[in-house]
Amino acid sequence: MIAHSMLPLVEGNAAVKAMFEDGRLMAERYGAENVYDFSLGNPNLYPPEAVKKAMIDILNNEDPHKVHGYMSNAGFESTRRAVAENLNKRFNTDFGAKNIIMTVGAGSALNIALRTILDPGDEVIVFAPYFLEYRNYIANYSGITIEVSPNPEHGFMPDMDEFAYKVNRRTRAVILNTPNNPTGAIYPDTVIKQISDILAAKEKEFSTTIYLISDEPYRELIYDDQPVVCTSKYYDDTLIAYSFSKSLSLPGERIGYLAVPEMADEADEFVEAATIANRISGDVNAPSLAQLTIERCLDEKVDVDYYKKNAEDLYNIVTEAGFSCVKPQGAFYLWMKSPIANDAEFVAAAKEEHIIMVPGTSFAGPGNVRLSFCVSNEVIQNSREAFKRLGKRYFG
Amino acid sequence: MIAHSMLPLVEGNAAVKAMFEDGRLMAERYGAENVYDFSLGNPNLYPPEAVKKAMIDILNNEDPHKVHGYMSNAGFESTRRAVAENLNKRFNTDFGAKNIIMTVGAGSALNIALRTILDPGDEVIVFAPYFLEYRNYIANYSGITIEVSPNPEHGFMPDMDEFAYKVNRRTRAVILNTPNNPTGAIYPDTVIKQISDILAAKEKEFSTTIYLISDEPYRELIYDDQPVVCTSKYYDDTLIAYSFSKSLSLPGERIGYLAVPEMADEADEFVEAATIANRISGDVNAPSLAQLTIERCLDEKVDVDYYKKNAEDLYNIVTEAGFSCVKPQGAFYLWMKSPIANDAEFVAAAKEEHIIMVPGTSFAGPGNVRLSFCVSNEVIQNSREAFKRLGKRYFG
Repeated sequence: MIAHSMLPLVEGNAAVKAMFEDGRLMAERYGAENVYDFSLGNPNLYPPEAVKKAMIDILNNEDPHKVHGYMSNAGFESTRRAVAENLNKRFNTDFGAKNIIMTVGAGSALNIALRTILDPGDEVIVFAPYFLEYRNYIANYSGITIEVSPNPEHGFMPDMDEFAYKVNRRTRAVILNTPNNPTGAIYPDTVIKQISDILAAKEKEFSTTIYLISDEPYRELIYDDQPVVCTSKYYDDTLIAYSFSKSLSLPGERIGYLAVPEMADEADEFVEAATIANRISGDVNAPSLAQLTIERCLDEKVDVDYYKKNAEDLYNIVTEAGFSCVKPQGAFYLWMKSPIANDAEFVAAAKEEHIIMVPGTSFAGPGNVRLSFCVSNEVIQNSREAFKRLGKRYFG
Repeated sequence: MIAHSMLPLVEGNAAVKAMFEDGRLMAERYGAENVYDFSLGNPNLYPPEAVKKAMIDILNNEDPHKVHGYMSNAGFESTRRAVAENLNKRFNTDFGAKNIIMTVGAGSALNIALRTILDPGDEVIVFAPYFLEYRNYIANYSGITIEVSPNPEHGFMPDMDEFAYKVNRRTRAVILNTPNNPTGAIYPDTVIKQISDILAAKEKEFSTTIYLISDEPYRELIYDDQPVVCTSKYYDDTLIAYSFSKSLSLPGERIGYLAVPEMADEADEFVEAATIANRISGDVNAPSLAQLTIERCLDEKVDVDYYKKNAEDLYNIVTEAGFSCVKPQGAFYLWMKSPIANDAEFVAAAKEEHIIMVPGTSFAGPGNVRLSFCVSNEVIQNSREAFKRLGKRYFG
């Protein structure tokens, strides 16, 4: 009745639903304040007040026909120009309005990029552990996901030899995600340069274009003193997928963009094709009021220090309880080693202490778990004793 | 550089861009009031005032975390329930919240339905003339579009023998669009019943499920005294794609839904799979503020009488000028016979009279043209002399 390709997704969905359901039931049974739910990537911070002001002002003062009507499928010219100029100001880039396609969030930006470049059987490389949804995005267009293992010595970075080996004539793209979901790591310059050098050499070897698709919805969520980076400066054939879901806490509004740097191979044709992909996806264009709103709020962001404190507090709590992990550098995820090989079993044990987390297997990173800390700081503080009890089970 | 499957789309796009560009240049050269642009399906009516009121009230009085945050991928439970109850009230249907998936417009609803059911090589039947974008939606998932010719005696209805002949084991769906783009026709009960009977017989013959996907964004735009119809009552395996783009003049906001009637084959599993398809399309969910807004505006609609008058006035003007067409029953399109076989040539001649219309070939309906009358009535009135001059060229 449904497509064969959808069947495993429906099966896999049962586990996800069970996890949500568990959280809900536990909150009902024990009281929400006694359940420590670190499973969701739903930003807990309010959007900046400027967002509400902008929306109401637009609704009161602009022509409704413009505010709610069709525009070019790539988005309002003024919004695209504002996005381009904001990027240029912050990152010394060289974008024009014509290099920006407004999209229904970063998820749609990725889908549109993949629709634009993939024919059935084409390959896209991802670095494990990774946001498993990439696999579904690639499969939407009958592409094939090729996983590269983590570097055994630096678990948050790819194994470069394996990566170089896996790039071949059918490789159409590599997806890079920094700051990273699920690891909370930021890719250092040196690593992005290594990736870029390998791709540039392979493009030459195979006479093909290989895109580096940089998924950067967490771009502004950085907790150590590293500069915020827009990844277009390392490699010509870079595509940038961005979302305002995290930086402005607007995940439900579905507003983001795909940026195609001018130096990308035949950038103009690419933008035209991607704009068509945006149209034929059925999205047609990014939501109009949301476009006009973010146009006025490009210098705004949520209180990143709140997430930074959450990151530190959660890191201290889990390490004091005996668990081993690296302090998150960005995004809102802490990636923790499971004290036993079977991460699902560890997640189940944690649930007995009312702690909800996601098994690393759900990110092609078995033996680990992911904790989202986009929750109120109180939840983190309250989880201290529960983590201590959980630690005692393994470390005595 | 871009996918092979995208190349013909980029080529075809040149013609569309040229048409828009022509309209813009002509308006610049001759003054906008002297150009009669009937090419666009962009509603000219303002949204009902209730939409603005609802949006501002929600922004001022509801929790921003709810208004702009993630919800279930299928949409807010309250919105889905309100949509279901509104349908039930108006059409005596039996929808529950669980039968509704809120989507990024009807275009995304169609894409999601197709992603849910199509494996590569599966077939979807469309009735010519039709909105050619269906072809792209189907190709997104490597499906194959099968066209059924119009009935030679009733050009706006399908040839039923050809239809029955073309339904086979690989047929996964049939797309029905009423009120119709581009013809402005409404499918009579008898025709929908005939289609349904053929499908029911073929489902039995092949032991397959064949969906009737009813694309009904123009549902409320009806100009003769026919009742507004929701097409789910004729055939169990119906899926309904709806958009608020036309009924509330919100095309830029991208808000619509997919409805899966309870009596459809394994409706619950279908909804689950389609909700996953919504997620993995990258849309994730329909825009949140727009969902909450339409929830409060389900009984609102734009001033349909305005379009009705436009339909009558345009019909009178073109028939008085000698052209032959049927008076539109719904949607906002008038489908007119080209006085010469080559509709592109006729469109070019019309342009010399400052009239812009779309060749029927763009809807798999050669020998015709489509005129959109979602324009100000003034444009229609002002076009009278131009149509007279155009008519004289052919009818003396």
